[in-house]
Amino acid sequence: MRMVDIITKKRDGGELTDQEITFFVNGYVEGKIPDYQVSALLMAILFKGMSRREIVTLTDRMEHSGDVMDLSSIKGIKVDKHSTGGVGDKTSLALGPMVAACGVKVAKMSGRGLGHTGGTLDKLESIPGLNVYVSEEKFAEEVNKIGLAIVGQTGSLVPADKKLYALRDVTGTVESTPLIASSVMSKKLASGSDCILLDVKFGNGAFMKNAEKAEELAHIMCDIGNDLGRDTRAVLTDMEQPLGLAVGNSLEVKEAIDTLKGHGPKDFEELCLRSGAIMLEQAKVVKSEEEGIKMLKGVIADGSAFEKFRQLVIEQGGDVSYIDHPEKFEVSKNIIEVKASKDGYVKRIVALEIGESAMRLGAGRETFDDVIDMSAGIVLNKKVGSKVSKGDLLCTVYTNKEDYAEIIKDIEKAFVIVDEFVPVPPTVHAYIHK
Amino acid sequence: MRMVDIITKKRDGGELTDQEITFFVNGYVEGKIPDYQVSALLMAILFKGMSRREIVTLTDRMEHSGDVMDLSSIKGIKVDKHSTGGVGDKTSLALGPMVAACGVKVAKMSGRGLGHTGGTLDKLESIPGLNVYVSEEKFAEEVNKIGLAIVGQTGSLVPADKKLYALRDVTGTVESTPLIASSVMSKKLASGSDCILLDVKFGNGAFMKNAEKAEELAHIMCDIGNDLGRDTRAVLTDMEQPLGLAVGNSLEVKEAIDTLKGHGPKDFEELCLRSGAIMLEQAKVVKSEEEGIKMLKGVIADGSAFEKFRQLVIEQGGDVSYIDHPEKFEVSKNIIEVKASKDGYVKRIVALEIGESAMRLGAGRETFDDVIDMSAGIVLNKKVGSKVSKGDLLCTVYTNKEDYAEIIKDIEKAFVIVDEFVPVPPTVHAYIHK
Repeated sequence: MRMVDIITKKRDGGELTDQEITFFVNGYVEGKIPDYQVSALLMAILFKGMSRREIVTLTDRMEHSGDVMDLSSIKGIKVDKHSTGGVGDKTSLALGPMVAACGVKVAKMSGRGLGHTGGTLDKLESIPGLNVYVSEEKFAEEVNKIGLAIVGQTGSLVPADKKLYALRDVTGTVESTPLIASSVMSKKLASGSDCILLDVKFGNGAFMKNAEKAEELAHIMCDIGNDLGRDTRAVLTDMEQPLGLAVGNSLEVKEAIDTLKGHGPKDFEELCLRSGAIMLEQAKVVKSEEEGIKMLKGVIADGSAFEKFRQLVIEQGGDVSYIDHPEKFEVSKNIIEVKASKDGYVKRIVALEIGESAMRLGAGRETFDDVIDMSAGIVLNKKVGSKVSKGDLLCTVYTNKEDYAEIIKDIEKAFVIVDEFVPVPPTVHAYIHK
Repeated sequence: MRMVDIITKKRDGGELTDQEITFFVNGYVEGKIPDYQVSALLMAILFKGMSRREIVTLTDRMEHSGDVMDLSSIKGIKVDKHSTGGVGDKTSLALGPMVAACGVKVAKMSGRGLGHTGGTLDKLESIPGLNVYVSEEKFAEEVNKIGLAIVGQTGSLVPADKKLYALRDVTGTVESTPLIASSVMSKKLASGSDCILLDVKFGNGAFMKNAEKAEELAHIMCDIGNDLGRDTRAVLTDMEQPLGLAVGNSLEVKEAIDTLKGHGPKDFEELCLRSGAIMLEQAKVVKSEEEGIKMLKGVIADGSAFEKFRQLVIEQGGDVSYIDHPEKFEVSKNIIEVKASKDGYVKRIVALEIGESAMRLGAGRETFDDVIDMSAGIVLNKKVGSKVSKGDLLCTVYTNKEDYAEIIKDIEKAFVIVDEFVPVPPTVHAYIHK
């Protein structure tokens, strides 16, 4: 078998055999196939696509290119959740404890963020002392003990994705649906949970800019998971405006705490309840979404969801006094209020603009070497559909930087206020269930 | 400027600026841009194509990526000819002397062959003692002295093409018209002649399998040459059956000698006369193709074309007694006659099959390390359109190998004989002149 023949076959629109896909993935990971042949194949895949079988095989071979997590020592059905990411997405911090409080095992591996704000791991690390890197044994132990763990992915999982993603990043081959789907799913599958809920976001603040492309991606990822023996479902959610009100690491932790206590922002609470209900269904704890939502509202009301988050923080070495007294979190030196310049209705809050502004305030990384300022960020006071009067607070900006004037201007521009009434948009647009 | 942005722009169908093309070609030659980014760009070019301006700029930058020949010391208009290659293509050996005998300067750089038979250089080297590698000074001196030289390309011309071609060869990006055109033309332009005649072949024995693709390539190459200030024209010629009768290195030299003496095969003579007439027009020696053909027939009839070939051989150190007495060329140990198994008309002689069989007989290289058997090959006795009776000689096979039985079967299969009358096909299908 020759790599050049595999490239040529795909280039001409052919369907690669399982043997050809195995040859390419293994050969690349073993260093036998050079980068320059792989990048040519990736570009051909970008143009010609892949069949469902090809994508499933590719994902499976990537999953098994390194170690896979063995979660068999964890009792019960293990459910994982993955978001394709967006601005203000602190879902795992609230959703994990809520679902775990209902008795479902949540063994979650998360990533770091590049761009707008940190990822889930960075947000957790804004809690002093909290450790996100634990051994496989400790991870299983924690899930068995409290029903929940949120940790960083270990280095030995899915080496094929690490190599392929680094190559795609510099060869213009990131934007290929089969390659995105296999990258995400190979990592989720290697993480070892029985069930996976995908939160596929679309809009200017998401990786997928339009709903159709996002829905196509969601379907392909569900197909992969289900074909490979995991109950995989997806919700398609809005990322035209930021999720919730807080954007920035410790700011988002505080919002997650609020939500676990029953007074989080409406859209974020809705997303947690609906996603959580699906996860409870997947774990066979409830029979319907309605039943699931009721149960989740119960664990919020009786304090057990919040208590679960406390247990997570304690178990992973964090200082729980910050959770009990969120006012302890360091606050940025500069606090700037952005106010409405006219009466009207909020038509748009451009998520991409808010996210990039948050990064420039110090909340995110431009390169992997950058250090995140955990206190920096933006807290919205209005959302799309809000009625505003001139002079109303639109958002509060937190930063330790001094040269924030230009950033404030960009944040002002992110708010579009119109005269006509604007309805509150839905957060969850579709539920994909095979 | 970042290479990844150039890749992405082309991937999305954009037109690269001259600066972007310069950045990529120079950066690649200088080793600053890695193979894996270039192969991704090449694949994107294969899918998205290039505008005329992009192709012209690419060719120009490739041409100037290393040394270019300075032929200014050669007096008069210098004409070069390039064939895209085919089975039995010994055109340069006869055409060069014919045109030079008419007083036009032919400064030709040729290549070696990989595949069916050797290239022009290999064929010339079947003449004992003949040297194809000479200095730039000696090359110009020879052209000034006898009006003709056929030599190998020196190492320092067009390094961009060497690097790009090696990469294309292993990344499935050979079959891109803009890349083929820029590769051929950058070398031709760097060789320094004032006028270029391209012989673009199509058919199963050629690189371009169909006439439309070949014509598109011919037009693009003419555009490049003319846009970059050289009078460039093309003939579109048939490569469904082998050109002439002889396929194999010294066998083809003998056929070239026959043709220079006026008794070559009809199709090969036609190609030489029509191509030569265009070259004479380009050199402004004649005013029409008719006039050119008349002049060429004259130099064949009066022996001056043959004498020019003798001079070339002498000048490049070859043993001219082989030219005067072609029966001196070593003859293969095994000579096998292939005969018609039925009455009828020859409908096809599959050039690809004949070419590959010739290679297996010893006439060509599979890899650059293979040594060519100069005496091996096939001499046809019939061509498409010939009437044959059962038992007639179709061709004679020459080889020093002993395990030729399977090869003979494949050669027999290359001949398709039908009951119905088959007209003799034309050799030159179109003449492209801007």
